[in-house]
Amino acid sequence: MDIKLINGGVCAAKGFKAAGVHCGIRKNKTKKDLALIVSDTICNAAAVYTTNLVKGAPLTVTKNHISDGKARAVICNSGNANTCNANGIEIAEQMSDLVAKELNINANDVVVASTGVIGQPLDIAPIAEGIPTLAKTLRANGSQDAAEAIMTTDTVDKQIAVEFTIGDKVCHMGGIAKGSGMIHPNMATMLVFITTDVAISSDMLQKALSGDITNTFNMLSIDGDTSTNDMVTVLANGMADNKEITDDGEEFNTFMKALNTVTVNLCRVIAGDGEGATKLLECKVSGADTPDTAKTVAKSVVCSSLLKAAMFGADANWGRVLCAIGYSGAQVDTTKIDVSFVSDKGKILVCQNGAGVDFSEEKAKEILLEREIVIDIKLNDGEFSSTAWGCDLTYDYVKINGDYRT
Amino acid sequence: MDIKLINGGVCAAKGFKAAGVHCGIRKNKTKKDLALIVSDTICNAAAVYTTNLVKGAPLTVTKNHISDGKARAVICNSGNANTCNANGIEIAEQMSDLVAKELNINANDVVVASTGVIGQPLDIAPIAEGIPTLAKTLRANGSQDAAEAIMTTDTVDKQIAVEFTIGDKVCHMGGIAKGSGMIHPNMATMLVFITTDVAISSDMLQKALSGDITNTFNMLSIDGDTSTNDMVTVLANGMADNKEITDDGEEFNTFMKALNTVTVNLCRVIAGDGEGATKLLECKVSGADTPDTAKTVAKSVVCSSLLKAAMFGADANWGRVLCAIGYSGAQVDTTKIDVSFVSDKGKILVCQNGAGVDFSEEKAKEILLEREIVIDIKLNDGEFSSTAWGCDLTYDYVKINGDYRT
Repeated sequence: MDIKLINGGVCAAKGFKAAGVHCGIRKNKTKKDLALIVSDTICNAAAVYTTNLVKGAPLTVTKNHISDGKARAVICNSGNANTCNANGIEIAEQMSDLVAKELNINANDVVVASTGVIGQPLDIAPIAEGIPTLAKTLRANGSQDAAEAIMTTDTVDKQIAVEFTIGDKVCHMGGIAKGSGMIHPNMATMLVFITTDVAISSDMLQKALSGDITNTFNMLSIDGDTSTNDMVTVLANGMADNKEITDDGEEFNTFMKALNTVTVNLCRVIAGDGEGATKLLECKVSGADTPDTAKTVAKSVVCSSLLKAAMFGADANWGRVLCAIGYSGAQVDTTKIDVSFVSDKGKILVCQNGAGVDFSEEKAKEILLEREIVIDIKLNDGEFSSTAWGCDLTYDYVKINGDYRT
Repeated sequence: MDIKLINGGVCAAKGFKAAGVHCGIRKNKTKKDLALIVSDTICNAAAVYTTNLVKGAPLTVTKNHISDGKARAVICNSGNANTCNANGIEIAEQMSDLVAKELNINANDVVVASTGVIGQPLDIAPIAEGIPTLAKTLRANGSQDAAEAIMTTDTVDKQIAVEFTIGDKVCHMGGIAKGSGMIHPNMATMLVFITTDVAISSDMLQKALSGDITNTFNMLSIDGDTSTNDMVTVLANGMADNKEITDDGEEFNTFMKALNTVTVNLCRVIAGDGEGATKLLECKVSGADTPDTAKTVAKSVVCSSLLKAAMFGADANWGRVLCAIGYSGAQVDTTKIDVSFVSDKGKILVCQNGAGVDFSEEKAKEILLEREIVIDIKLNDGEFSSTAWGCDLTYDYVKINGDYRT
């Protein structure tokens, strides 16, 4: 089963249109702040949400709206998280109502999302003004505008799309995301909107998404903070005309593989564009005795502030890798651990059986100066593996977060 | 019961001498790198160790040496952690042997500690050369030299001593510490050596220490990394001549209070001198339904990279406080939470019942520009409180850790 990368982002699947405009939530008029994604027909829908107890009002509203497994549009603003506001739910409902009225659809079929500062009332006026403009500018190549409109401290827009076949039908799936700071395993200030023209039941769609994120978005960490507003949604409108996927089997597996291609790609782009990041870190753990051990170790290493700072400095400080494994909570035999650093410039073994080995600091530096670094950890204790994604800790992370609100 | 602050650090208690020298582990000749603390008589001893699975060789040796509840001397080097080295145990034993021989004491009564880089073999030669010099320079006002010799990226030496009475006897307790990076609840690259002339049984000494650290050193976080080498030891030589404390009661309570004064003071100094820190953060949680909830919330807030960066920028971004409470894992009613920021410049309420309140950004800035900030969180849901200590996240943290080894 071939998964081919294509262009088009969230509009690559048949029947989806998108738009993004500046409506005035942000002062900077050159930054778009309101995005809309719409399907020509009703979609089966699935979503996963942040585990933070403090949940943005839009999440509560969205959860309620797609409890019937159906949705047709996504409205998302950046610049204000609409969280910890007394009238948050009311505002989020108003956003849905305005979209529903404008598009002549059911308010119950609108997914609402917000991202930005917490605890500042969100004014509905600019949004009310922006929605008609959005509706007018909806188009089949609007993914770029929507992707830009959901960005906060992101430095690049994040889009991906793939083409694949189910039965004899050509299918498509695409997504846009915003990431950057406050991203930690179990969802964080991360918004991902995925669209597909595959016909698949709501139940199987939710099963696919819930299964996929345990190995993708939940293995992604920028700074260890888990945000209040994050969610991943998938809308499937069935316009590829395949026989609806209603059960496990080959077709579901193909769907899962396409979804995984989309989500891993977005994870890597989000991690590499972490706030202030200069490097994408990919921690690959193999030889674990259980899947949980593999995950726990990979996450712990990719989250270590000390290691992240060392990677920024291209310093092969493998002791910090061992240290992070040691406090991860996983029960591992530390005397069996091998660690290598890998990049396009090659691979270097720096620790074997839990102790240092002689290695060329020069070669290590050359490897670590690259933009994408793999931290390869072999636990030599079993068959299970896992990958986690993160980024280095830099001066700019501190700068960006030292005074975000002003 | 009065606990009076006095001078003298680790030599404030009767019968303790200390010294610190440059022996050559570090290249910089002006930085002392080897410390010795000795009691005139055998002491009852207690210790707590890092929870990291990767444990420095010195910890294994120390644990073994004080398994009989006795010790008389502490040898500690900085510049090399003697961890993840094939011959680590051997080197740590050699350090004890050399001290024992030089002082004519039992090697089994020596506490060994090391701090610095992980995974680089520790050469015994400079230590063997340094120990006779150390022994010769031991003196009753040597705390300063010892405190300096255990520093790594610390910018100030850390000492404290107190005087108090048990029965009709004047007693003393003092300590030195090294802290800075890689400090996280449950011990981290932190070494604390406490001495006292109180007569107290080994069992009660261990009980006092183990009880105290759950509210002190285990509530301290610089960067979330838990080090491989940390420990806190207490030596009690009984020279104050009080009736030995062998059970709970008023005298044990006085001892606990003195110990807590010493440890809280060291926690605050260590937090305020976190790597690159410009501010001491003290997170006070009250009104929790259980002691665990109070601790979990306090730790989570003080560990949030986003909040730490906001404090560096003197930005009253209380949404990040709520966010960190929400993902802490504690079950709290987020709609009851009040948050204030407090410093010498006053107190400002920024969040009430989980939502923002109008406040003067100017006044908040004035408060947050101070060197010591209290984040005051009221959960309004019970009777329990807890305090955690940490520091802001700054450019210099990244700089210090971007290339620590070279």
